[in-house]
Amino acid sequence: MSDVNIPKTSRGQETMDKICKAAEELFSEKGYYNTSIMDIAQKAQVAPGTVYIYFKDKKSIFKYLLEDLSYTIRKEIAIATKDCKSRYEEEKIGFRVFFDFARKHIGLYKIIWESQFVDKELFKDYYDNFAGRYMKRIKAAQNNNEIADLDPETLAYCLIGITNFVGLKWIIFNDKPVPDEVIEDIMKLLKFGMFR
Amino acid sequence: MSDVNIPKTSRGQETMDKICKAAEELFSEKGYYNTSIMDIAQKAQVAPGTVYIYFKDKKSIFKYLLEDLSYTIRKEIAIATKDCKSRYEEEKIGFRVFFDFARKHIGLYKIIWESQFVDKELFKDYYDNFAGRYMKRIKAAQNNNEIADLDPETLAYCLIGITNFVGLKWIIFNDKPVPDEVIEDIMKLLKFGMFR
Repeated sequence: MSDVNIPKTSRGQETMDKICKAAEELFSEKGYYNTSIMDIAQKAQVAPGTVYIYFKDKKSIFKYLLEDLSYTIRKEIAIATKDCKSRYEEEKIGFRVFFDFARKHIGLYKIIWESQFVDKELFKDYYDNFAGRYMKRIKAAQNNNEIADLDPETLAYCLIGITNFVGLKWIIFNDKPVPDEVIEDIMKLLKFGMFR
Repeated sequence: MSDVNIPKTSRGQETMDKICKAAEELFSEKGYYNTSIMDIAQKAQVAPGTVYIYFKDKKSIFKYLLEDLSYTIRKEIAIATKDCKSRYEEEKIGFRVFFDFARKHIGLYKIIWESQFVDKELFKDYYDNFAGRYMKRIKAAQNNNEIADLDPETLAYCLIGITNFVGLKWIIFNDKPVPDEVIEDIMKLLKFGMFR
């Protein structure tokens, strides 16, 4: 079988969703290495054999979650920013959506960051992919004269870094939503710089 | 015994250094969970009992490494920036030193990032501490009118995020030093912003 079997019925999809939700929670609470297929099955209230209908092994679940998180966050940002009039406005709303998403999926950080220990290539692919999409949008805005002529890759990693660490501070360390004032300050930094 | 026994002789210090170097390499290559005290002793070419002279357990070594990395990086930045005439120049040289340090200690990222799975409080303390020191320097520069009036904590986490993710891209993913042009572009972003 392939690593993941996408269910063909809505009943199967429900079961797979339960398994994914349980896995996300367990990986987030206990980490990848301290979680077994048995734990996941128990939390999802399915038989261990049922997990193997959809996933080859624990790593396949992990990889699937990572791809699903990446897809869902991009989709939510795309929907929320579809009526934006400028790249600036898009970026600002993108921050809000990302932070709110990360707060709802508190395991997001842990799962992504732990992936470097589970599988270095998975981790690299995740960010290569994410940064690649960011770069395209930055280049488009540069062509449109909305963003300064700085290396799009450097900008992409700066923005990813800002999102990750501001989110880390508020969502993980403080266990609170990121306040609007914080996003305002990030936007001022990105609009005017910080050095006088 | 306490968690760590600092040796009283230079011979003891040499042994402890060997143990730390071996542990840093192993945690970095194989991760914390896949490394045993036995592995560390073997790599350091000491008897397992010798490791326990200096450290209570594996976690004590991990914690000590984390504190030592934090101290050393701050010391190197302080030395390199002592003759700087402005906060802007200090920040720029600080980036160079941090990136070069991270490249020499490639396990730095892994050790710090894995700490959230080993001990959440260790991880939080590491960044609280790092950000706290950053904030003091940002506030001083704000009083001096060198940095705009933005929340120092937000700025600290933005800068930490930029350093971590640009470093991740170049040092970990590309396995190359961070080019000077990349630091130039980060500095332009921090001086003028990116949005037009």
